[in-house]
Amino acid sequence: MIRILCYLYQTLCIENILIMNERNETTRIEAFSDGVFAIAVTLLVIEVKVPDHVHVDRVGLLRALLEIWPSYLAYLTSFATILVIWVHHHWIFSLINKYDHGLFYLNGLLLLFVTFIPFPTALLSEYLLHRDARVAASFYTGIFLAISLSSDILWRHVSINLLSENAISGKTEEVMQITRHYRFGPLLYTGAFAMSFVSEPLSVILCLLLALFFSFRRWSINKPE
Amino acid sequence: MIRILCYLYQTLCIENILIMNERNETTRIEAFSDGVFAIAVTLLVIEVKVPDHVHVDRVGLLRALLEIWPSYLAYLTSFATILVIWVHHHWIFSLINKYDHGLFYLNGLLLLFVTFIPFPTALLSEYLLHRDARVAASFYTGIFLAISLSSDILWRHVSINLLSENAISGKTEEVMQITRHYRFGPLLYTGAFAMSFVSEPLSVILCLLLALFFSFRRWSINKPE
Amino acid sequence: MIRILCYLYQTLCIENILIMNERNETTRIEAFSDGVFAIAVTLLVIEVKVPDHVHVDRVGLLRALLEIWPSYLAYLTSFATILVIWVHHHWIFSLINKYDHGLFYLNGLLLLFVTFIPFPTALLSEYLLHRDARVAASFYTGIFLAISLSSDILWRHVSINLLSENAISGKTEEVMQITRHYRFGPLLYTGAFAMSFVSEPLSVILCLLLALFFSFRRWSINKPE
Amino acid sequence: MIRILCYLYQTLCIENILIMNERNETTRIEAFSDGVFAIAVTLLVIEVKVPDHVHVDRVGLLRALLEIWPSYLAYLTSFATILVIWVHHHWIFSLINKYDHGLFYLNGLLLLFVTFIPFPTALLSEYLLHRDARVAASFYTGIFLAISLSSDILWRHVSINLLSENAISGKTEEVMQITRHYRFGPLLYTGAFAMSFVSEPLSVILCLLLALFFSFRRWSINKPE
Repeated sequence: MIRILCYLYQTLCIENILIMNERNETTRIEAFSDGVFAIAVTLLVIEVKVPDHVHVDRVGLLRALLEIWPSYLAYLTSFATILVIWVHHHWIFSLINKYDHGLFYLNGLLLLFVTFIPFPTALLSEYLLHRDARVAASFYTGIFLAISLSSDILWRHVSINLLSENAISGKTEEVMQITRHYRFGPLLYTGAFAMSFVSEPLSVILCLLLALFFSFRRWSINKPE
Repeated sequence: MIRILCYLYQTLCIENILIMNERNETTRIEAFSDGVFAIAVTLLVIEVKVPDHVHVDRVGLLRALLEIWPSYLAYLTSFATILVIWVHHHWIFSLINKYDHGLFYLNGLLLLFVTFIPFPTALLSEYLLHRDARVAASFYTGIFLAISLSSDILWRHVSINLLSENAISGKTEEVMQITRHYRFGPLLYTGAFAMSFVSEPLSVILCLLLALFFSFRRWSINKPE
Repeated sequence: MIRILCYLYQTLCIENILIMNERNETTRIEAFSDGVFAIAVTLLVIEVKVPDHVHVDRVGLLRALLEIWPSYLAYLTSFATILVIWVHHHWIFSLINKYDHGLFYLNGLLLLFVTFIPFPTALLSEYLLHRDARVAASFYTGIFLAISLSSDILWRHVSINLLSENAISGKTEEVMQITRHYRFGPLLYTGAFAMSFVSEPLSVILCLLLALFFSFRRWSINKPE
Repeated sequence: MIRILCYLYQTLCIENILIMNERNETTRIEAFSDGVFAIAVTLLVIEVKVPDHVHVDRVGLLRALLEIWPSYLAYLTSFATILVIWVHHHWIFSLINKYDHGLFYLNGLLLLFVTFIPFPTALLSEYLLHRDARVAASFYTGIFLAISLSSDILWRHVSINLLSENAISGKTEEVMQITRHYRFGPLLYTGAFAMSFVSEPLSVILCLLLALFFSFRRWSINKPE
């Protein structure tokens, strides 16, 4: 009987380990992505430049610090956006316990745009008050549009191929909600992109509001259904 | 009997996994925050600038290195402060085994200020010996005040909503101690902020002393009670 | 009987823990390497420089942004390459459950080149349109060649010394496939290096194509066998 | 009987978890330190500066790249040193399964110096061929001396207070070996520091050799005993 017990124990253990391995695979992609998010969010501050001595000697440090408000706005918006992408990324990965090559590379595409964020952020900080501000703002909102599109593609791939039955049992509502998120995301960021041709600061503030908006995960349109 | 045993084993395992998942959620926020702390603390050194050749040719490298002592002071103070924030952050999260959206976003607010630290650090390094030093020192101590306030808000949220009964059984003293910490923290940093209008270097040294002070977790006022 | 059961349980547990410890060792090297990969991939963007005001005032921001296309190409190529190295690194480590000092230091050699990637990337961004472009492109492709060679050495060491019997049972095909990968890798990158003496942009595009090529893990030459 | 079995199972589990928690504490310090090591090692490359256009137009890119050999030497030496510190740090932590406040803060002191490494590395890259090279080399070797001293202090603290009986059973030889390491480390780095007053490049090469030397963990003087 002990032999049977041991056998059962081992069987349970091995099954457990197999699931663990499968999970470990996605866990490792998630951990790598988390690292990238954490670094991208922390690197943003490098692009907030200390005002130079010549300018400070002319206008004073206080005014020089106030004049670089586009840097603070860009920093805040990019920070909030990366944090929201991180939360949603986490949300998606909490539903997966399978993986395929598509996941690796669609996730890589998303990370490509996320790690790029510090560049348009620096561009916006530097040129939001310049006569070519439109180019900087379009570039900035354009990257966010690209991120929302690649998140959408990632989610479509995940929702079609990688949701195991028992992973989503009782989570149909949650899955539908994410689908709704990603259906509206690209539309809203297209709006922000279009806005950049009307008013550059407003298009950035719109991105900030969208980040805050998406951070309150449960949509009101979710309730009536 | 074996069937019962297996059933019991599985039940135990499943319960275990459920608790694990709940913990995993906070663990992941904690891991992400740890990553941000580790990067912020390591990025500080980028703001310690190598003296330029023109200046070195005039005064010599040794003197040029001595002249940038504000960089070393700012580096040391920011390093010690981030390390202490990390320890306290860890302390708070060791008491939590629940999470909610508030935790995500209040933690995000704290990280927003922590990732920003390299900027006021660079500002202080550059302008502590300038006639506008007051602005740099107020900005620097102001960010630390903001961090102590957002830590306080985070802790209030945690202590009211996220402490499970069994997580704090026998830890009442510890919880009360953290509460005391966070009640005094903002007051003390308000002092450092006020000090920046009197003496800029002293206000920075005060921040360094506060970091060392908080690092010896157990307060003396803790004993009499 | 309970005593026997307990003994068996403990034995199983202890054996488990021993394997865990051995695995923990490689897991920690892997986690450290993952951190390095994540940081290297995120640091690339720092080398994409915001165009300066003098130049932008002359040609406009849009044209200035288009002119720095070598930065985007170099960024994309380095990003894709690091991601592929990460995937392959992960693949190798998934087969190991032993470790030795050679693994520590051959892995260190690989990381030495990987962390260096941002420098040739910046060099290429700056000099791809310069009359000395050949030097920049040879340097860039040369580093990738060095990486493919050190990956090859790492894999040879692993495949000879660190594959435990049961780790590769049923994985012979996979092991052979990796061996094939690493036999061709250095050859292909030698080709890219040679190409840099013919056409600099083409040699970089070749590196990008190689990264995409290697990312589809299963080679066609794998099928006929 | 099942009840007894369950009780036993639970007891085993709970004991396991308690040890886990104690370990988790040191694991988290270790993970944080690992993050810092990984970032410090990857940030080094930022200090390898792309030669500027004016200089390249005069001497050509190839010669400009050869001229910055101090950057490569400094990069390589700092990289190897950080990697060796990481390995030794890992070695120390593998023996600990207790922790105290001293560990937190002595570890913090070590990290303070490790995160600072990119600055003296940049200084050396910039001034190794300058007439003030001695200052740069003394600063560089001085930081490494400080690191070897703070490692020594950390190890003394650990070996006196944090080695549990069963953690070191059968590891006495290993503990003695580390003690020997740390006894000689500061002496050897004092030698490198002294050498910087004789020949700057040699003192840096000595640091590189020391890193390689320490990386072959088992000393020859270990054998005769």
